[in-house]
Amino acid sequence: LAFQVTILGTGSATPTLWRNPSAQVLHADGEYYLIDCGEGTQTQMLKYKIRPGRLQGIFITHLHGDHYFGLIGLLTSLSLGRRTAPLRIWGPPGLADIITLQLKYSGSILSFMVDFQAVDPNTSYQLFENDYFTVHTIPLTHRVHCSGYLFREKNHPRKLIKELLPPDLSTEHLKRLKEGYDVLDSSGQVSFAASQLTKPAAKPLSFAYCSDTIFDERIVPQLKNVNLLYHEATFLHTMLDWANKTYHTTALQAAQIAQMAGVGQLIIGHFSSRYKDATPLLDEARSVFLNTLLATEGETYAVTEHETATPPPLLP
Amino acid sequence: LAFQVTILGTGSATPTLWRNPSAQVLHADGEYYLIDCGEGTQTQMLKYKIRPGRLQGIFITHLHGDHYFGLIGLLTSLSLGRRTAPLRIWGPPGLADIITLQLKYSGSILSFMVDFQAVDPNTSYQLFENDYFTVHTIPLTHRVHCSGYLFREKNHPRKLIKELLPPDLSTEHLKRLKEGYDVLDSSGQVSFAASQLTKPAAKPLSFAYCSDTIFDERIVPQLKNVNLLYHEATFLHTMLDWANKTYHTTALQAAQIAQMAGVGQLIIGHFSSRYKDATPLLDEARSVFLNTLLATEGETYAVTEHETATPPPLLP
Repeated sequence: LAFQVTILGTGSATPTLWRNPSAQVLHADGEYYLIDCGEGTQTQMLKYKIRPGRLQGIFITHLHGDHYFGLIGLLTSLSLGRRTAPLRIWGPPGLADIITLQLKYSGSILSFMVDFQAVDPNTSYQLFENDYFTVHTIPLTHRVHCSGYLFREKNHPRKLIKELLPPDLSTEHLKRLKEGYDVLDSSGQVSFAASQLTKPAAKPLSFAYCSDTIFDERIVPQLKNVNLLYHEATFLHTMLDWANKTYHTTALQAAQIAQMAGVGQLIIGHFSSRYKDATPLLDEARSVFLNTLLATEGETYAVTEHETATPPPLLP
Repeated sequence: LAFQVTILGTGSATPTLWRNPSAQVLHADGEYYLIDCGEGTQTQMLKYKIRPGRLQGIFITHLHGDHYFGLIGLLTSLSLGRRTAPLRIWGPPGLADIITLQLKYSGSILSFMVDFQAVDPNTSYQLFENDYFTVHTIPLTHRVHCSGYLFREKNHPRKLIKELLPPDLSTEHLKRLKEGYDVLDSSGQVSFAASQLTKPAAKPLSFAYCSDTIFDERIVPQLKNVNLLYHEATFLHTMLDWANKTYHTTALQAAQIAQMAGVGQLIIGHFSSRYKDATPLLDEARSVFLNTLLATEGETYAVTEHETATPPPLLP
């Protein structure tokens, strides 16, 4: 099982030669999802050998260019590559208008279906689930409507302790034990206890992506115990006034969010072009939340367990 | 006087790590004009140290993404850089719709005025002139409406031969001599002959850009004696059927156009991603038209005189 994120862009709106605009790929149990798609994202995917054809879906947070100007190019390239599998796209309602207009004027019909789902930026809700994970929206506070995304593994089954298993258990019984239920006899007594025949499952892991947003404590409850949090940290705290004015977060504030939510690890990104060297942003964040990393393009970050996460309870 | 073009992108629709999509900057007597603007063009400008703020105007040939997907990002970056000078944009009518829609959804108002002029793709006409040059459209034949552009210097003034000039000539007389007119006395006789007191002016130079188009001889009269022609050469001639089907030109055909028009120099570009090494395209073109170059990103090509251009006539 892979649950990891590869960073493709760490910059913000002003283009630079040393950073690309926002984009990352989440690899979740064999499926690939793109989160934001700034200009040049398809080139970054080529560079880091992530085949765009493998994408199941794309999440766009908001309609500032550094988060989506690369999308139309990616879609037309997928079509040139003769993709046939439908592609899911989640994003602000206007995104469908923009893509549709550009396809119209290029006289193009994509080789695949786009299953577009407009995201309501005003409330948190479950946007998507498959067998492996769920995706919830995180309403953010920016100059335009903006939604972060929370990716959570579903509960894993408990692990059977093979040495202790009686030989005559049915498939149905094994399934119930793995789900944490005891197997009862006809009188309702426990024949086989899940607590004895199974080991606790691996904790379900979670990854949250919050860019772009002003410092906003209201997102903390949703981020509680998240294993890996990507939070924007556009400026140093010396630029707090400007951060507030532009609805962005300082590195210090990003770390405060991580600390309040008790997340496992914080990745900061979306750096202003004024910081060619992002180390001061890292130092500032670590003064509040030690387990912070700088987002680095081409790097893959595994979502891993951390101590504070609560294990899933045994079911009665 | 500079009249030169810097190539920023030599690729075609399918993105690669070794070529960028179409874009070039024309430097004409201190003014800078961008011609086409594929995705990533603003990064190419950074890389080759061409300040986007210096652009006077942008010409877009057609609405296939590899020719304009970088435009909206460039415009928003210029606005972030607080440009105030108006920017002229020429392109297909739909371009205004697309830009307007993207600005609307980003909640943005550009810091500068855009003077957009829709190009009629069906006929050749003068689109623009300033003191230095004129721009005419070249109707091309592609899957969507597409216009090439012809940039021509205006006639330069003749050069005064200072040693021979009588001391009492007025500024007005000098101006007329430089324009090639004789100075007459009150009886209508020639007092001072332009042919004696001046040397011929440098020939006015011309640059034409033709991408994308199927092989189409109808453009030859417009390209007659052009000093520098950029013509697309997407495929080798072995792929002629596919070139016809996709309304593109082979390297051989591009050279035939150059040869028929008697241009000074041909630059071929817009190479298919299947040719990582474009040398075979160059060899093919040179088999017909020797003075061919491969478009190379970051290279600047001066527009220079060649033998077949007719000098401007002396005026009576």
